Amino acid sequence: MAGHSVEIASAPLLSFDELRGALHQVGEERYHHRHPFHLLMHDGKLSRGQLQAWALNRYYYQSVIPIKDAIIVSRSDDPGFRRAWRKRIIDHDGDGNSEGGIKRWLKLAEATGLHRDRVASIREILPATCYAVNEYLNLVRTQPLLEAVASSLTELFSRDLISFRIEKLREHYPWLTGGLDYFEARLTQAPEDATFAINYVYKHAKSREEQEKVILALRDKCDILWAQLDALYFAYVQPGWPPPGAFRIEG
Amino acid sequence: MAGHSVEIASAPLLSFDELRGALHQVGEERYHHRHPFHLLMHDGKLSRGQLQAWALNRYYYQSVIPIKDAIIVSRSDDPGFRRAWRKRIIDHDGDGNSEGGIKRWLKLAEATGLHRDRVASIREILPATCYAVNEYLNLVRTQPLLEAVASSLTELFSRDLISFRIEKLREHYPWLTGGLDYFEARLTQAPEDATFAINYVYKHAKSREEQEKVILALRDKCDILWAQLDALYFAYVQPGWPPPGAFRIEG
Repeated sequence: MAGHSVEIASAPLLSFDELRGALHQVGEERYHHRHPFHLLMHDGKLSRGQLQAWALNRYYYQSVIPIKDAIIVSRSDDPGFRRAWRKRIIDHDGDGNSEGGIKRWLKLAEATGLHRDRVASIREILPATCYAVNEYLNLVRTQPLLEAVASSLTELFSRDLISFRIEKLREHYPWLTGGLDYFEARLTQAPEDATFAINYVYKHAKSREEQEKVILALRDKCDILWAQLDALYFAYVQPGWPPPGAFRIEG
Repeated sequence: MAGHSVEIASAPLLSFDELRGALHQVGEERYHHRHPFHLLMHDGKLSRGQLQAWALNRYYYQSVIPIKDAIIVSRSDDPGFRRAWRKRIIDHDGDGNSEGGIKRWLKLAEATGLHRDRVASIREILPATCYAVNEYLNLVRTQPLLEAVASSLTELFSRDLISFRIEKLREHYPWLTGGLDYFEARLTQAPEDATFAINYVYKHAKSREEQEKVILALRDKCDILWAQLDALYFAYVQPGWPPPGAFRIEG
């Protein structure tokens, strides 16, 4: 690893297009659009109970996003950066004009048939969901700001996944259709955010070594998303063993 | 939950035996001696590759234990407590007389057929292992010291599990026999540590509410151990899908 770092340190800086290409390659290999749980979802093969487990667990991720973004805001000494990043907190927590992403996610969870209070209590989430999401907070708290920003770059890939998902959810689970506002809003929010973030990391990664750390931060974030779906698959698809105390599918 | 807390706050303090009974009940329900991965291990049904995955992943847990204990030492203003807890750091990191638990775990990993440098690099661990172990660090860093101490109480149950495991590993995987020093040492270390910790939490939990938090901290720790085995089972037993970049069983 030491030898590898020396090699990287003397390597030429990537151009914007090369950096974007390297980031997209990480997405091709590790973004959760390839995860078997999502493949089942998009093929219409998940039961209502499995979609409940998904909505209930991912709620914890959604609920933590504005906390994650507030940590990132808190770490910058640039008012311009803080103003720009603040948008994300509003997108998720809402304001006078918009209910925000967390409430929209609760509507999705309700459309699966769960009571919103039960979901919002987070009492029945998988411990593995909690640990993966908390690791995202660890990352943005303890890693350099550049890497904290880079970890948001999964948004480079989310519009394609979300537009495909909206189509597939409508097709296979028509009873969910009233709950898709969250995804509709993300279709425009995510690409705006991704554009800001990729420009930021290109501008602020001053060496090839820093560029490589940007790429690794995106990889780490992909792993955090992937691990959440592994845990769902294990608990609710195959072998189907939720740990003691977690949500159980009824009937 | 609020109503529940009020009820707990006015409930009578548990006696030492009642508290110990409540802790043992948590162990019965949630300690990882019941986990299907351990049941397979103790029935002789794991392959060498699966034992390698186990040793390689659990190495990360072992490597973090003295860091966890140093955090706990750092949070106490009582020199007597710090002196007593320091023993745990020495047990794992070693000193002039003893190689310590981390090196002993590497010997176990070598006995499975892995090179110690490969294991110690932690490059191939499951992300889910990393997140669960890091959550243990989050817990001891951010929760009250009483709960940080209580989270170590899984040691109440470890001697029984370890003595059973030593017997079963010798029976089913005789090629592992030279690597069991870690477990042999824990047979005496763990009960000493558990006795200190249970006396500490009984003395320092001044209300029923604090006693309930002690019980919950043990439950949280059990979940952290359980989640590590869920991840191993998912990646290396059934369905057998390690995430991108993680250790793969050869052949």
